Amino acid sequence: MSATTAPNGVDVAGRHPVADPSKVSNPYKPVGDYISNISNFKIIESTLREGEQFANAFFDTETKINIAKALDDFGVDYIELTSPVASEQSKKDCEAICKLGLKAKILTHVRCTMDDAKVAIETGVDGLDLVIGTSHFLREYSHGKDMAYITRQALEVIEFVKSKGVEVRFSSEDSFRSDLVDLLSLYKAVDKAGVNRVGIADTVGCATPRQVYDLVRTLRGVVSCDIETHFHNDTGCAIANAYCALEAGATHIDTSVIGIGERNGITTLGGLMARMIVADREYVMGKYKLSKLKEIEDMVAEAVEINIPFNNPITGFCAFTHKAGIHAKVGIVIFDPYHFKRMPLGLAAILQNPSTYEIIDPADFGMTRYVHFASRLTGWNAIKTRVSQLGLEMSDDQVKFVTAKIKALADVRPIAIDDADSIIRAFHLTLGEHPEKNMDAAAAAIPTA
Amino acid sequence: MSATTAPNGVDVAGRHPVADPSKVSNPYKPVGDYISNISNFKIIESTLREGEQFANAFFDTETKINIAKALDDFGVDYIELTSPVASEQSKKDCEAICKLGLKAKILTHVRCTMDDAKVAIETGVDGLDLVIGTSHFLREYSHGKDMAYITRQALEVIEFVKSKGVEVRFSSEDSFRSDLVDLLSLYKAVDKAGVNRVGIADTVGCATPRQVYDLVRTLRGVVSCDIETHFHNDTGCAIANAYCALEAGATHIDTSVIGIGERNGITTLGGLMARMIVADREYVMGKYKLSKLKEIEDMVAEAVEINIPFNNPITGFCAFTHKAGIHAKVGIVIFDPYHFKRMPLGLAAILQNPSTYEIIDPADFGMTRYVHFASRLTGWNAIKTRVSQLGLEMSDDQVKFVTAKIKALADVRPIAIDDADSIIRAFHLTLGEHPEKNMDAAAAAIPTA
Repeated sequence: MSATTAPNGVDVAGRHPVADPSKVSNPYKPVGDYISNISNFKIIESTLREGEQFANAFFDTETKINIAKALDDFGVDYIELTSPVASEQSKKDCEAICKLGLKAKILTHVRCTMDDAKVAIETGVDGLDLVIGTSHFLREYSHGKDMAYITRQALEVIEFVKSKGVEVRFSSEDSFRSDLVDLLSLYKAVDKAGVNRVGIADTVGCATPRQVYDLVRTLRGVVSCDIETHFHNDTGCAIANAYCALEAGATHIDTSVIGIGERNGITTLGGLMARMIVADREYVMGKYKLSKLKEIEDMVAEAVEINIPFNNPITGFCAFTHKAGIHAKVGIVIFDPYHFKRMPLGLAAILQNPSTYEIIDPADFGMTRYVHFASRLTGWNAIKTRVSQLGLEMSDDQVKFVTAKIKALADVRPIAIDDADSIIRAFHLTLGEHPEKNMDAAAAAIPTA
Repeated sequence: MSATTAPNGVDVAGRHPVADPSKVSNPYKPVGDYISNISNFKIIESTLREGEQFANAFFDTETKINIAKALDDFGVDYIELTSPVASEQSKKDCEAICKLGLKAKILTHVRCTMDDAKVAIETGVDGLDLVIGTSHFLREYSHGKDMAYITRQALEVIEFVKSKGVEVRFSSEDSFRSDLVDLLSLYKAVDKAGVNRVGIADTVGCATPRQVYDLVRTLRGVVSCDIETHFHNDTGCAIANAYCALEAGATHIDTSVIGIGERNGITTLGGLMARMIVADREYVMGKYKLSKLKEIEDMVAEAVEINIPFNNPITGFCAFTHKAGIHAKVGIVIFDPYHFKRMPLGLAAILQNPSTYEIIDPADFGMTRYVHFASRLTGWNAIKTRVSQLGLEMSDDQVKFVTAKIKALADVRPIAIDDADSIIRAFHLTLGEHPEKNMDAAAAAIPTA
């Protein structure tokens, strides 16, 4: 985060540069805000820590190393590993990954105790992510320590970690159910003690976007260090909450590949990319190797034996599939001649200007767009495009005629592209040299359901 | 929405009652806001309209009827169907569902034209969802109509629909990329013409939670009718955006089962339930038959040939699975004796008070909690619980001993519950009558990797 000086000479705090209007190429891009980091964020990738807590996860050493290398190649800023205290193998794996010489910094996530910190330091990590529970719920039902004790312990461990010359983050858990004054007091103290980051964690997945914005914005005014955030997805808000945290001045977002973690997981790496590329394509494209996303997701999905969800952002099998439809005819208006009559070639908006109906260019992720035209919701512009793709020539009336036949068949049963193509080809074949006179004969040649 | 009069006698607009502090049982529940409808929202279930635009969807009549009946039984307020103009069968299916006599009102989603409106009215629906494109992108690349023309056409169709005595909603598409003044002018006009609802649609899935809040809140001050919202999930914010819309005064949320729809779909019915039950359990439990959620999701997943995503809120296979871990030891602290030493029976927080580590009670949805203890991240409290579940008795030292054996095995390969149970049983069997003296013999009896 380079220091920035505003035109009036006032230092605007370095990490929060005012958006440069000349760089705003997308008119729908959010208005620049001096505390927002949507154009200046870092990823702490936790597939090898949070992800290891996923029900199906068992990563052997080779798998961990492959995932770490792939994440490093993708361009994540940090890779977080399971605590070396968890098991002997966890410790060995941590040491092995530290020795890979990756560009990404290696972190491990440990309890805020001297014992754990000492073991962690010895593994050779670049930083420690210290964590302690502070919520009302946790204090009542778990360790029962009071805040003064927590603060003393935190400061002792932080001083030790700093003395070893590695990065240190201090985080609460269940931050959104912790007492606000306790939380701010504790973070003010650890900030003064020189931590690199404080962390806000929605451990149970209860936070709402506006709660996140409010808490992070308040914290932004209390500490001068970086702010890391961690969001569980129990109520489906993990990506949105990460975005709001950045808007409010958070600097680092925890992710995992396909979101794997405790219960239904956390902010997904791919989902965050989908959200952020819409906010600042230049920053995201310049920093992360997006074309590798699918490969990494496939690797992790295989390792934990799950399918990529059908509705996964970017890589779900239908993420860029458009089905021509009545809906499309009305608003997005892809294939309806009613709406497209002024277009020179009768081509639909989908072909003229993809941004009309999609906010992310699949090519940015090495993916392709797919228009599903073989359904009863189809329209004649979709079929006309297909006729052209098949290298055939037909008049508009002929295309409309064959479209009606395809819709009629699709009304009876699901049809594949091959079915639609067969109908088109059979119809075209019979049209002969004087197609306008052979419509009936051609129609008779169309295969039926 | 019953009218409410504030204590000072000022009518607070009926639909936005001030939260009654005496009803706030959850201290972490958002503070009441006079425009918020998080405790007073309606669902427009669009699996049979938006969902039919999902790449894999082909619903025959029987399937449509089964889905409609299941949604009605669940308690959704409205069921939205594909336009009868889409195809002959779509029209017949619409008529058939209208004749079922469901409690839910039946809507169909049609272009804002007289032709479409006339066909739709004849099917016997309870209301029409009119839609027209208004965004800059759409005006430039699709139909090219100007706003005056759009407004005139809208008013004509609305007058016709109202004259037929059915509900009418008027919506733009791609509302978040439409000109704000155009949008507000249009909505003010249709509100004056007496529509039941205006609709805001994030057709391309670009909106962020705070943009949603701002637009809906602004609109709330311009129209007096209800406000419906529709969010696509391209950037992973569909559930969060729906929540923020309700906070800003929206009254109706569009959903589909498992979120199926164009591309990667819209706000999921189950995800919205997960989000809203945290905000107002009483309202959600009182209105919707949550125990039916899984059955409905399974029905739709089968019909469109997809798997329920592993990370689906509520019904994903691991949504309520907790894996004992180092992470748990630190903050959530489920199984670490270090943190639980003051507990009378050494039981973990997970067993003492589930709200410590989860925000949704699985029982509310007829689901069960599962603690995954057979991993290298496990702890002795988890094993102690399992020993007790198996009806065995061991001292704490014995449990700690067998825990170490289980962790060592799990460090080498993934182990199943059966593996862990075998180890526990074998160890227990050999303990004999004087277990404290037989630790070594018992240890020798443990199966190895």
